[in-house]
Amino acid sequence: MNLAFIGTGRMGAAMVRNLVAAGHRVTAYNRTREKAEGLGAAVADSPAAACRGCDAAITMLPDDHATEEAVFGREGIGGAPHIACSTISTAMARRLAAQSADYLSAPVFGRPQAAEARQLLVVAAGRPELIRRFQPVFDAIGRQTFVAGAEPWQANAVKLCGNFMIASMLEAFGESYATLEKAGVAPHLFLEVMSALFGSPVYANYGRIIADRKFEPAGFALKLGLKDVRLTLETAAECLSPMPFASILRDRLMDAAAHGQGEKDWSSFALWGRP
Amino acid sequence: MNLAFIGTGRMGAAMVRNLVAAGHRVTAYNRTREKAEGLGAAVADSPAAACRGCDAAITMLPDDHATEEAVFGREGIGGAPHIACSTISTAMARRLAAQSADYLSAPVFGRPQAAEARQLLVVAAGRPELIRRFQPVFDAIGRQTFVAGAEPWQANAVKLCGNFMIASMLEAFGESYATLEKAGVAPHLFLEVMSALFGSPVYANYGRIIADRKFEPAGFALKLGLKDVRLTLETAAECLSPMPFASILRDRLMDAAAHGQGEKDWSSFALWGRP
Amino acid sequence: MNLAFIGTGRMGAAMVRNLVAAGHRVTAYNRTREKAEGLGAAVADSPAAACRGCDAAITMLPDDHATEEAVFGREGIGGAPHIACSTISTAMARRLAAQSADYLSAPVFGRPQAAEARQLLVVAAGRPELIRRFQPVFDAIGRQTFVAGAEPWQANAVKLCGNFMIASMLEAFGESYATLEKAGVAPHLFLEVMSALFGSPVYANYGRIIADRKFEPAGFALKLGLKDVRLTLETAAECLSPMPFASILRDRLMDAAAHGQGEKDWSSFALWGRP
Amino acid sequence: MNLAFIGTGRMGAAMVRNLVAAGHRVTAYNRTREKAEGLGAAVADSPAAACRGCDAAITMLPDDHATEEAVFGREGIGGAPHIACSTISTAMARRLAAQSADYLSAPVFGRPQAAEARQLLVVAAGRPELIRRFQPVFDAIGRQTFVAGAEPWQANAVKLCGNFMIASMLEAFGESYATLEKAGVAPHLFLEVMSALFGSPVYANYGRIIADRKFEPAGFALKLGLKDVRLTLETAAECLSPMPFASILRDRLMDAAAHGQGEKDWSSFALWGRP
Repeated sequence: MNLAFIGTGRMGAAMVRNLVAAGHRVTAYNRTREKAEGLGAAVADSPAAACRGCDAAITMLPDDHATEEAVFGREGIGGAPHIACSTISTAMARRLAAQSADYLSAPVFGRPQAAEARQLLVVAAGRPELIRRFQPVFDAIGRQTFVAGAEPWQANAVKLCGNFMIASMLEAFGESYATLEKAGVAPHLFLEVMSALFGSPVYANYGRIIADRKFEPAGFALKLGLKDVRLTLETAAECLSPMPFASILRDRLMDAAAHGQGEKDWSSFALWGRP
Repeated sequence: MNLAFIGTGRMGAAMVRNLVAAGHRVTAYNRTREKAEGLGAAVADSPAAACRGCDAAITMLPDDHATEEAVFGREGIGGAPHIACSTISTAMARRLAAQSADYLSAPVFGRPQAAEARQLLVVAAGRPELIRRFQPVFDAIGRQTFVAGAEPWQANAVKLCGNFMIASMLEAFGESYATLEKAGVAPHLFLEVMSALFGSPVYANYGRIIADRKFEPAGFALKLGLKDVRLTLETAAECLSPMPFASILRDRLMDAAAHGQGEKDWSSFALWGRP
Repeated sequence: MNLAFIGTGRMGAAMVRNLVAAGHRVTAYNRTREKAEGLGAAVADSPAAACRGCDAAITMLPDDHATEEAVFGREGIGGAPHIACSTISTAMARRLAAQSADYLSAPVFGRPQAAEARQLLVVAAGRPELIRRFQPVFDAIGRQTFVAGAEPWQANAVKLCGNFMIASMLEAFGESYATLEKAGVAPHLFLEVMSALFGSPVYANYGRIIADRKFEPAGFALKLGLKDVRLTLETAAECLSPMPFASILRDRLMDAAAHGQGEKDWSSFALWGRP
Repeated sequence: MNLAFIGTGRMGAAMVRNLVAAGHRVTAYNRTREKAEGLGAAVADSPAAACRGCDAAITMLPDDHATEEAVFGREGIGGAPHIACSTISTAMARRLAAQSADYLSAPVFGRPQAAEARQLLVVAAGRPELIRRFQPVFDAIGRQTFVAGAEPWQANAVKLCGNFMIASMLEAFGESYATLEKAGVAPHLFLEVMSALFGSPVYANYGRIIADRKFEPAGFALKLGLKDVRLTLETAAECLSPMPFASILRDRLMDAAAHGQGEKDWSSFALWGRP
């Protein structure tokens, strides 16, 4: 396929490489042009230029604001067929769906390494025939595709709740470590037990980051994590669904951000209140 | 070794079988005597009788109260060498340590099936040479032993925090399912994504129980889960460590108990407030 | 002075009557025209028409949305001098300040009866000379004026936090009543003690509404209370200030709204979870 | 009447003076004997000695532990008629009721100054004829007596919930001040508005203590406030009643205690997390 790809940060760059490797023709755009080069894709000077003649534009941008600019801005992608892989709000997903007749939300789970290894989990939502048409795109970037529903924003709701699940795990680790340290038990011992109990690489990985207090470089910046928990609460508020854990997470993340941790790994909020 | 085993419920019975299979000589005691029979162990009429001449008494009882009775009661095990595998409070562990010169806390993680398959995780704490001495006991019942510290109650702190980690996961599932259902996304779809994301059998198992709303028969009764979260908060209070997630869990579990769910699986609290 | 008054609901109507009684010339506008009649004010067909030649336009509208329409809409008040007495967001106050060179936020505390009796508390913010100029307006509607700062939105922050203080009292009553009822103590006995302890008419009044479960007719609709707590949390989020009580209140109010209590008195959320 | 009075701290001393002034014959006991002298009461060497021949023993002690000692200890008051004015747990009240056939719980609201001015609020519970019999005692120490029920512990439940109401107000002030300070609004301005809004001396008093950050000398020590909130949660747990505000208060108070604020005024927890 002929694909436009908007946003070649660490995640996006890896995805472009995999799309090219799978035989797609990709034209990339990035605000800092250099980051779009050397990926095996043509490089365009604007989202609009990247889209010219494409089968679909894929966006992989940090937030609603950047997505808005890339779509609705001057020289934006406008009404072109569009697959948004970014973690955006359900409200923004609805605006994008109103803008393009052929719109899919397809947010992804996975850190940059997973993106490079084509191991992302893709959660897609939108018209079934559209999802079928773009299955080769999803296959090129991830190891599995899930279909969340016929309304694009439903995929974003799933992505936000997934991040909330991870954040809840981080807080649970943080509270346990805090109590156990005061009880004289080493966090690493607890981590070992939890790794054996849950048998999950996500637990092993994040549990170690917190136990080691190794929050730099950030795998996922705290300010983005805060944004995601806020969006989760907004989605929950739209349907009047209380999420008390999410409220606590928001408070913790805000507090961490207020203490200058915005650029550190988001798991650093779990050390809240400790020296 | 010559072992006394007090408390042959589903968990205890499986542990006795494995101890016998490993070549230990076991004398079992259970309040309902029949449950102690047919396990390959001799059966005694009281904890005291079971202990006579034993290298250690192992207790596997539902709570502090039952443990208190079995140890300090008339015909209790008294000052005999003692390994408490039950999920008890850190305060009770300190009382037991004061009672017996050779006392270990060794609570276990795992449901009855894991006990049968000798797949329990054992978290032991106490004097190092005592842990070494009883390593064969741990090997006979579990797949891995972790040493939490030289103070027996530290193992109980780890066990309580581990259960708190699981309860936090249950609540996170509950909140996500609630929001997603209102958003028209099926819980089972979300479960699939989370199973792939976390890669953890614990997530797959509990996520399905809640999605299926299949809370009977209970794998672990809600009233026991409530007890455990309370004990976690008590341990945290001893060291002035706030655990806001645990506070919410306590409220949810209390509410569920007040609505008659005490005998259902503890994961049923996650459906809180929903029809 | 020549005043335009936009929004003559129960609160606004009482305020107009007091402004007229104090000798001001008032031209009123209300979407439902009849509600603007019989108050001693001229009646206009649009906000713009009401403003013609006025010294200031006063708005008293239910929320941001209605205020936006009355100001920025076709036939809105536009850039006229403007005093917004409504409970609006701090973000909206900043937009209004950008729109009119002579803008004051002056939200009020008090129920309709207090408005009628000229007993409102006025919290004003904006340029000092502007506040001085309009002091006669504040004197005509309230018993006391407080100056929150030189930035108009600061008055809205104070108003939102004030409503949050009341909501916190409601929840505290609700939790106490719930526990005491289960303990066999009548809510009315507790109310009597609290009335004596706090010596506050606000406690006596709201404590009785909840004890009597008399939530209709609504003095202040729950859906508006929910809106206010949301705006409080938004203001807090702007400055990264965690407000855990406010988060709980939001959850409670959402839950009550989801159960159809949106038009009842907002204090009804305090009965949460009870038959 | 002939009264024994156990515990002549600041509160107790004022109460003894008022009892003597009302014409009662009082024999006082205090662990530090000097504090019992000069109050117009005879001084005894033990609770038991103070009780000899008395119509009732009144206890005014800091907590369950001190009360237990004074009642059940060697030379304690034993089974004598007993009025406990202390803030104790509902569980302890039940133990005291089992100990003495003529037992009343009669906790009081009010700071030392109120005690001196005979302005305490007395919340009594127990057998009606017993309350009638001791009405003169209550009249001598307070301005109003409330009857909470026929079970003594019900009065303690009311007292604990009352303290919870005050603590909730403190937290609401703390959250508001924090947000408003970041918004550039002075706490004292907000305090003025709240004083006018609630019209309550309790708001004016505590609001000022927090705004002034004047937490020493403590009117009521934080460690005692923490104890009371814990007891409130225990009472709520007895009847499976969730109190989310109380859970947050407990966390805040624990955190403040962990940071060395135990002897400061309890309102100091409201400054939580701020420089």
